[in-house]
Amino acid sequence: MKPSIPKGTRDFLPSQVRQRHYIFKIIRDVFELYAYQPIETPVMENLQTLTGKYGAEGDRLLFKVLNNGDFLSKADEAALNDRNSQGLVSSISKRGLRYDLTVPFARYVVMHRNDLTMPFKRYQIQPVWRADRPQKGRYQEFYQCDADAIGSESLLLEAEYIMMIDQVFDRLNLDVEICINSRKILFGIAETAGVTDRFMEMTMAVDKLDKIGWDGVMLELEKKEFSAAQSAEVKRLFSLSLVDMADALQGETGKQGLAEIKEIQDFLGEITLRNSLTIDFTLARGLNYYTGCIFEVKSLEVEIGSLLGGGRYADLTGVFGMPGLSGVGISFGVERIYDVLVEAGKFPEDVTSELDVLIIATDAEALQRGFQLAVALRSQKVKCELYPDLAKMKKQMKYANAIRVPYVVMVGVADSVEQFILKNMQSGEQESLSQDALVQRYSQQPKFD
Amino acid sequence: MKPSIPKGTRDFLPSQVRQRHYIFKIIRDVFELYAYQPIETPVMENLQTLTGKYGAEGDRLLFKVLNNGDFLSKADEAALNDRNSQGLVSSISKRGLRYDLTVPFARYVVMHRNDLTMPFKRYQIQPVWRADRPQKGRYQEFYQCDADAIGSESLLLEAEYIMMIDQVFDRLNLDVEICINSRKILFGIAETAGVTDRFMEMTMAVDKLDKIGWDGVMLELEKKEFSAAQSAEVKRLFSLSLVDMADALQGETGKQGLAEIKEIQDFLGEITLRNSLTIDFTLARGLNYYTGCIFEVKSLEVEIGSLLGGGRYADLTGVFGMPGLSGVGISFGVERIYDVLVEAGKFPEDVTSELDVLIIATDAEALQRGFQLAVALRSQKVKCELYPDLAKMKKQMKYANAIRVPYVVMVGVADSVEQFILKNMQSGEQESLSQDALVQRYSQQPKFD
Repeated sequence: MKPSIPKGTRDFLPSQVRQRHYIFKIIRDVFELYAYQPIETPVMENLQTLTGKYGAEGDRLLFKVLNNGDFLSKADEAALNDRNSQGLVSSISKRGLRYDLTVPFARYVVMHRNDLTMPFKRYQIQPVWRADRPQKGRYQEFYQCDADAIGSESLLLEAEYIMMIDQVFDRLNLDVEICINSRKILFGIAETAGVTDRFMEMTMAVDKLDKIGWDGVMLELEKKEFSAAQSAEVKRLFSLSLVDMADALQGETGKQGLAEIKEIQDFLGEITLRNSLTIDFTLARGLNYYTGCIFEVKSLEVEIGSLLGGGRYADLTGVFGMPGLSGVGISFGVERIYDVLVEAGKFPEDVTSELDVLIIATDAEALQRGFQLAVALRSQKVKCELYPDLAKMKKQMKYANAIRVPYVVMVGVADSVEQFILKNMQSGEQESLSQDALVQRYSQQPKFD
Repeated sequence: MKPSIPKGTRDFLPSQVRQRHYIFKIIRDVFELYAYQPIETPVMENLQTLTGKYGAEGDRLLFKVLNNGDFLSKADEAALNDRNSQGLVSSISKRGLRYDLTVPFARYVVMHRNDLTMPFKRYQIQPVWRADRPQKGRYQEFYQCDADAIGSESLLLEAEYIMMIDQVFDRLNLDVEICINSRKILFGIAETAGVTDRFMEMTMAVDKLDKIGWDGVMLELEKKEFSAAQSAEVKRLFSLSLVDMADALQGETGKQGLAEIKEIQDFLGEITLRNSLTIDFTLARGLNYYTGCIFEVKSLEVEIGSLLGGGRYADLTGVFGMPGLSGVGISFGVERIYDVLVEAGKFPEDVTSELDVLIIATDAEALQRGFQLAVALRSQKVKCELYPDLAKMKKQMKYANAIRVPYVVMVGVADSVEQFILKNMQSGEQESLSQDALVQRYSQQPKFD
């Protein structure tokens, strides 16, 4: 039997795990700096919690877990006889795999309302599952890194998110463009263009601007039976500057959207960001639960989709029986960020090499002494490995090269039995040292966790 | 709709996440110190990989993921017509949830043999799933923390595991007893008692000694048709001291087991452990893939099952087509360790409080200044939160108490607009400081990640 893993899933080698944790740690540290608190939710949720929250397409892409035991005994007989797969599911499967972190968070807030103090700021770094067709850069099992604040309408939170985003990409040493907009401005544009009743259609068309250009968007609008005058007005409005937009927009909602952007800018004041912040009226974000400010991040180094999405939603928990809680959140696209770091060569070199020294010995007595040396070095927090077998020196040095360890200590080859040979694997330099001298050498370069 | 989560799964509140990560970090740090490398495998594995590896009971407890789309179109017609749930599974489900970390590791080693350098030492901290009946302390979704070394028969690895186990529990500030034995000694006892052909039955019975005492074990053996003389001999042998055992055991395997224990002791030599190390001949470990040394850890503070299990296996990857690779590993029972830390009150207090300071303001202008102060403090790595709404002072102080923040900064209440009031929430003490003085105060107590 030749072993394999399911399509769209991945094994991670040690170097990859270290690279991924380097990203997670930077995001986690920034979340913590801004007082976001970690929560975790189960991988399996009740299908009742998940179904209907992501549209028909989302329902189709949910992974469902088969009930245990004699699941057919409670199966829907009619669906079974009709060989109706979709009709059968709910009677043979009660649980599904988490599809995103937002719906479980909403469910969590409602379930634990008595244990939480509002406003509640949480972050969550966990995998999610979608039965999408696997392709380059798209997986069925992948991580999301979300932060959400719930129970406050303050735009201070939006301003803080912009700083958090900037700091994460600064620490990652990646140049990006941070784009913001407001769904209220989008609504104001629809209002002004006289297409309020087709707000979603307009938004969905403009959302594709990056990919299909204005010609494509005009075609989309035409298909959706916008008149030529309406389409032209939509295009004109979307092309306005911030100043002109303030004059052009009619209706309260649009004006409010602009005022909110202004308030966010006021909070940021004179603060210097590493990355550029752009107000982009054509930024729409597909998800229709957003109701206020929306965020997106584009890489300036690698051609790839957005590295972050987010925004404010007026009511996320209403569906679970707790209406009227406003929230705002962001979600880092860590899988894409990983790809950008690889392509741009921006992973720090020391992320993948975590061993400090390899100790090698070729006879039993030397191995014993190597064991004692390893104990002494580890007490100084030196990460060290003792080659466990009495293999030939050549084989052990081959191993040292394969794992790319910076230093090797050879036991039992120096002139005196008290001495160890320390070899710098990069320069090839060797020196003879006593155990005390060796340990002291490393204690002078203390290792912090 | 009242939201819920599946039985046997858990949500974790921020304080619980921090407590759990405190345990994970200690284990991870020790694994790294001993040069074990992190890997990760997918949550979903092919059922072909999992099925048949955990016995009939294990197969029953596997969570199976329903195939997506029209899964009935490829369903086994005969099983469907017979309403045969077990017969139907393989035709409607290709994937299952990981049941442990050992089988995925074996699969991983075989799949990535060309990317790995032997001996390969890996650790893995990930959740697993079992459809066990949920009860106190037993979950359907729980974490495992495993380290395994593969491709070496050296007993140095066993000696290092004993040190690793001791160091983990030392860092956790828990007193435990580390028990070791060898399956070879168990076999030697069976040989000497003349019950070689019923080695497994003897082992399983003795494995229950802790729970049922020798009277119970003798009854078990009687049920398994051991003669009275055989049972008495088994009991006599298991009660021998280490020295007497060496004289008593006949056959090469048993003697080899004793020699191996001796070699491990020689490696450890004069090293001082925090915890006691006991050679316990009655330690058996249920899993029958162990072939050499076995490990177990018992809490000396709280009455609970074992906190760690492990051992050496002669051939783990053979089932995936790569025979003859010897391995040895340990698995920390983190869920139980969590319970012990709670019950013994051994979690450090600062694990759950991660916010340094809360800034509060009651008017828009003060909020702006609070924002600038937060920026300055965060640049010094101070974890701070700015209460986002212009709520009444009383409400904001109530929030400060609820989240148990050690310091609160009040903006816009001091005599001068340039001054901030810093309040120690434990002592109630207040002082008036400029922004520079406040920032300097915190920069003198630098925060390390």
